[in-house]
Amino acid sequence: METELICGRNAVIELLKTDRAVDTVYISSEDGEKLSYIAAMAREKKIVVKNVPASKLTKMCGRERHQGVAAWAAPTEYVDIDEILGIARSKNEDPFVIIADGIEDPHNLGAIIRTAECAGAHGLVFPKRGGSSITSAVQRASAGAANRLPLARVPNIAAAVRHLKDEGVFVYCADMDGDYCADVDMTGPLALVVGSEGEGVSRLVKQLCDVTISLPLKGEIQSLNASVAAGAIIYEIVRQRINSSRSKSK
Amino acid sequence: METELICGRNAVIELLKTDRAVDTVYISSEDGEKLSYIAAMAREKKIVVKNVPASKLTKMCGRERHQGVAAWAAPTEYVDIDEILGIARSKNEDPFVIIADGIEDPHNLGAIIRTAECAGAHGLVFPKRGGSSITSAVQRASAGAANRLPLARVPNIAAAVRHLKDEGVFVYCADMDGDYCADVDMTGPLALVVGSEGEGVSRLVKQLCDVTISLPLKGEIQSLNASVAAGAIIYEIVRQRINSSRSKSK
Repeated sequence: METELICGRNAVIELLKTDRAVDTVYISSEDGEKLSYIAAMAREKKIVVKNVPASKLTKMCGRERHQGVAAWAAPTEYVDIDEILGIARSKNEDPFVIIADGIEDPHNLGAIIRTAECAGAHGLVFPKRGGSSITSAVQRASAGAANRLPLARVPNIAAAVRHLKDEGVFVYCADMDGDYCADVDMTGPLALVVGSEGEGVSRLVKQLCDVTISLPLKGEIQSLNASVAAGAIIYEIVRQRINSSRSKSK
Repeated sequence: METELICGRNAVIELLKTDRAVDTVYISSEDGEKLSYIAAMAREKKIVVKNVPASKLTKMCGRERHQGVAAWAAPTEYVDIDEILGIARSKNEDPFVIIADGIEDPHNLGAIIRTAECAGAHGLVFPKRGGSSITSAVQRASAGAANRLPLARVPNIAAAVRHLKDEGVFVYCADMDGDYCADVDMTGPLALVVGSEGEGVSRLVKQLCDVTISLPLKGEIQSLNASVAAGAIIYEIVRQRINSSRSKSK
């Protein structure tokens, strides 16, 4: 397994807050003073800190914005779907899983991982092929959530959906022709499939899902940004679950 | 007023669908055949189409992705806040206005404009200084919504909030320490202020707002992406309005 380069301030800070092994933190000499708090965080964890010219960081990070800092981290560790379900069980919560079906834009994938973590989802499933992997850009857009949210990298999304259904999880497909999500009960064990910006959820996966859900579009532009649509539906799920637990506790 | 360069396929297509004046559409010779439908759209509107080497487009668009196409468009036309309120009145709807208080990331501003348009908001207010202007990157991230949603570019957000309040609009501030938005009634004449990713809504503006609202954060990452948070709250407003109109029509 190869180590992975993480670029950018927030991404490195969030990396340093996790238990993930970090080899070296590089800080640009030009920003050394301003970024000394990051160096201090790294040194406290006994991680080697190297001061390098900003031009070296630019070369290392390529098209990624480095903002004066980068780090070599151990590769992202993945879980399998049963581990995600086990986490839900251990918390005594209904499973709440997000499935990213071929999200290609690293900013969207990162933002979806970030939203899933913030909303209390138990994990995110994404495909080995046909979509962005967990790159440094995804890490950065996730604001560190990619190091915290359990991630399952699966060979086949359709097989993952079948497996979740076998485990009693209701699978919802987000797509434009679905029922308005606020009119659909989403309080039980649930997985939400979100598709790529251009193509949406793939046809086979959509057919396997139990229900297709959507958000109302009232303007002339006929689609939302993929991570915004995912976020609005994820927070509708959160709302329904809060409501449901409140009425149970009455 | 200067003309404005729009780069990228979706942005140019959405531009051509609007009434905005377009001077010239540039299509890369390498992609000429694949993009002939865009050339046809332009020619139908009597717009000059020029075939140029892709390298020229790269030079024109700089860091923007051009995907083989760019266009010079007339500058974005702005409205004032009273025009936005007039649009709501003419539709016999309660005003639904989004205020972007210093969003700096063009992708976030574009995605917020796109969400506002999709959700049926009547307009978006943003500051002349202290935040992104409507750049080509914003245009592209908005998927064309920046050409359709009425935009008010104001010298001062605090004055805009005061003006809206004088007009009977209830102003909600999105910030982490607010009440959970689903517990707050958001069905009347409303403006929603969303702040920048780093700083949130500025202190003075926040003090002027009638209520501060938030989304629950259940993970370890303590903030959502700005456009995702705006999207989740905007769609909670839509949900409440749909509910309210359904119960009125009963």
